[in-house]
Amino acid sequence: MIKTDILIIGAGPTGLFTVFEAGLLQLKCHLIDALPQPGGQCSEIYPKKPIYDIPGFPEVLAGDLVNNLMEQIKAFQPGFTLGERANTIEKLEDGTFLVTTNKGTQHNAPIVAIAGGLGSFEPRKPLINNLKAFEDKGVAYFIKNPEIYRDKKVLIAGGGDSALDWSIFLADVASEVTLVHRRNEFRGALDSVEKVQALKDLGKINLITPAEVTELKGTDKLHAVLIQKSGDKEEQIIKEVDEFIPLFGLSPKLGPIADWGLEIEKNAIKVNTFDYQTNIPGIYAIGDVNTYPGKLKLILCGFHEATLMCQSAYQRIYPDKKYVMKYTTVGGVSGFDGSKKQAPKAVVKTIE
Amino acid sequence: MIKTDILIIGAGPTGLFTVFEAGLLQLKCHLIDALPQPGGQCSEIYPKKPIYDIPGFPEVLAGDLVNNLMEQIKAFQPGFTLGERANTIEKLEDGTFLVTTNKGTQHNAPIVAIAGGLGSFEPRKPLINNLKAFEDKGVAYFIKNPEIYRDKKVLIAGGGDSALDWSIFLADVASEVTLVHRRNEFRGALDSVEKVQALKDLGKINLITPAEVTELKGTDKLHAVLIQKSGDKEEQIIKEVDEFIPLFGLSPKLGPIADWGLEIEKNAIKVNTFDYQTNIPGIYAIGDVNTYPGKLKLILCGFHEATLMCQSAYQRIYPDKKYVMKYTTVGGVSGFDGSKKQAPKAVVKTIE
Ligand SMILES: Cc1cc2nc3c(=O)[nH]c(=O)nc-3n(C[C@H](O)[C@H](O)[C@H](O)COP(=O)(O)OP(=O)(O)OC[C@H]3O[C@@H](n4cnc5c(N)ncnc54)[C@H](O)[C@@H]3O)c2cc1C
Ligand SMILES: Cc1cc2nc3c(=O)[nH]c(=O)nc-3n(C[C@H](O)[C@H](O)[C@H](O)COP(=O)(O)OP(=O)(O)OC[C@H]3O[C@@H](n4cnc5c(N)ncnc54)[C@H](O)[C@@H]3O)c2cc1C
Repeated sequence: MIKTDILIIGAGPTGLFTVFEAGLLQLKCHLIDALPQPGGQCSEIYPKKPIYDIPGFPEVLAGDLVNNLMEQIKAFQPGFTLGERANTIEKLEDGTFLVTTNKGTQHNAPIVAIAGGLGSFEPRKPLINNLKAFEDKGVAYFIKNPEIYRDKKVLIAGGGDSALDWSIFLADVASEVTLVHRRNEFRGALDSVEKVQALKDLGKINLITPAEVTELKGTDKLHAVLIQKSGDKEEQIIKEVDEFIPLFGLSPKLGPIADWGLEIEKNAIKVNTFDYQTNIPGIYAIGDVNTYPGKLKLILCGFHEATLMCQSAYQRIYPDKKYVMKYTTVGGVSGFDGSKKQAPKAVVKTIE
Repeated sequence: MIKTDILIIGAGPTGLFTVFEAGLLQLKCHLIDALPQPGGQCSEIYPKKPIYDIPGFPEVLAGDLVNNLMEQIKAFQPGFTLGERANTIEKLEDGTFLVTTNKGTQHNAPIVAIAGGLGSFEPRKPLINNLKAFEDKGVAYFIKNPEIYRDKKVLIAGGGDSALDWSIFLADVASEVTLVHRRNEFRGALDSVEKVQALKDLGKINLITPAEVTELKGTDKLHAVLIQKSGDKEEQIIKEVDEFIPLFGLSPKLGPIADWGLEIEKNAIKVNTFDYQTNIPGIYAIGDVNTYPGKLKLILCGFHEATLMCQSAYQRIYPDKKYVMKYTTVGGVSGFDGSKKQAPKAVVKTIE
């Protein structure tokens, strides 16, 4: 069982910054995310695109913002349960919460901060009859650890940035990469489309378009797929593959959180505006996942909400302590790893 | 008369970022600040100190944050009335506001955003009888334009960073720089103290300590000062000077704004939390200057408040238009100077 002070559901920008604000108050955090990597929408949907409205950054790539946040919170040593969805919540007798994921991992904390954005990112799956039977047995919708594919025969399906970028990346790792897409046209960064074209010309990526995978073959494990070519010359191809990775995008689903007894409005969790607490004391909702009068689904708003929320969480955990806020410039930042960041002190010195 | 869409009182980080959010909504801004430069507390009190809790910046110097914000808002061409204090506000018949400064400059706008921080920064003045008579006639408490001091005999009084840093700077500009402080010890960045020591050793700064300026002499304009040396050898020195700059720090005063009919609580302006509007419709208060349940006087909170406030201002100015928020990543940023920032578009392209 994982124990922490603030259990954060969702490792998007809001969840990540919460670790920092909690850390300033000496509270520890653990984050759960359905995605294999932190960063939420920024990492999953538009890591290479610029954001212009993060205060103090005339321009920052979404992926760089996430990297910066990871760097900023490092000293507070957050724990991560990645690639798992928080499914159930239970209030224990001692007043703390028990949150269990779809893979059975249990987390216990006095405070739960839901920073779930538009919801848990779930892969869009192709309509193939026996798909489910092969999940984790040769079929995966995310690439968590590319090393798994070393010297394997890999088939990627999809026509967007993920399909392009992973085909490029795995061309150097797998023994064989095949890319199947139901159209001839791909949609993505110019650079990525051109790289795939070049790798195809070099024979490092097999391209089969327009086509779709229609059947999976194998006994315990995936062994081959049936590909249906459409267009001018329809044909069926049987292709031996070890791994099939359909990358058809992710769609966020509020999902299980919708059944936790929280007041929901317009697919978001209702909160008050002084500490962003929900109708269940001890459970907060911050960032894109919440709603209140005037709410804007912007990253900078999540940062503010996380900050106010942590103050309230501190008061709940330590009802008798009076917390006096100190500016980071004045008080510095004391990491849980023993590190200390501090402004250079002024000297008092005689000039002779 | 200066006319604009949103008149911002206070050019601290909150006021500056307001220009950006307003600009996204195609609203123009003008800022008034009592200080000679933008940046509020960040520029005036701790420009060279690091801040650790600006989201996405593991560390940023307060002065650099201000520079970044100035860069971020540049395309929205804000106007500035600097070195003047907003003194009075009047509601005109057409429902707009007229704000007049201590120097008589008039500003007119349908929306006023008070981003006044802890108040208008007012210099702490030394107790010298005839000080007031020489203000702007050889006595100044801010350095707005260092060129004014070229080839002049300058006397700076004070023992902190401003006194040290301006002595260093003016040593290369003025014909003579004298630094007077009532103690032998100076308090500031080690680097600055050491530079003043070095310049003193080179004879480029005259140091008189422990000592105080006690009298000013001159007819139309300052001509000389009387310096009272204390400590071991008490003596009176008459020193010829063209310019006397007492740098004894600034203290913020809510000042005239306190009399504008706004609800005040704990020296701050009461606002609601959905658009940070005050009790007077059309007048908002954002950043350190406002208060509401849960309020934290942090820079990142001012950014959020400015953002929500601009949405509401837009609705007040264009009650009939329905504004649909677009992410900057998706919609780009269209400057008033004709510039356009935009994420590179995805291509749709056949791979052959
Ligand atoms: C193309 C695009 C451009 C954008 N441009 C801008 C912009 O310019 N400026 C701006 O401010 N915003 C922009 N946004 C919006 C911005 O990305 C979001 O406001 C921000 O990501 C919200 O952060 P968050 O941390 O609240 O949620 P998210 O980033 O959505 O992260 C939430 C995380 O929670 C996880 N999660 C949810 N439920 C569960 C569960 N039950 N179990 C486990 N994990 C769960 C999800 O998997 C997800 O990773 C843009 C969004 C998109 C899609
Ligand atoms: C030493 C120090 C360290 C700090 N460290 C941190 C930190 O680590 N993190 C953090 O988030 N915050 C920190 N702060 C606080 C932070 O600086 C403030 O929260 C921030 O500056 C507030 O911004 P603002 O724009 O609301 O107001 P301000 O920065 O106070 O700016 C307000 C401006 O309005 C002007 N003004 C007011 N009234 C009038 C008037 N009537 N006419 C004309 N001009 C007027 C003032 O002259 C001033 O320039 C620190 C503050 C100090 C002093």
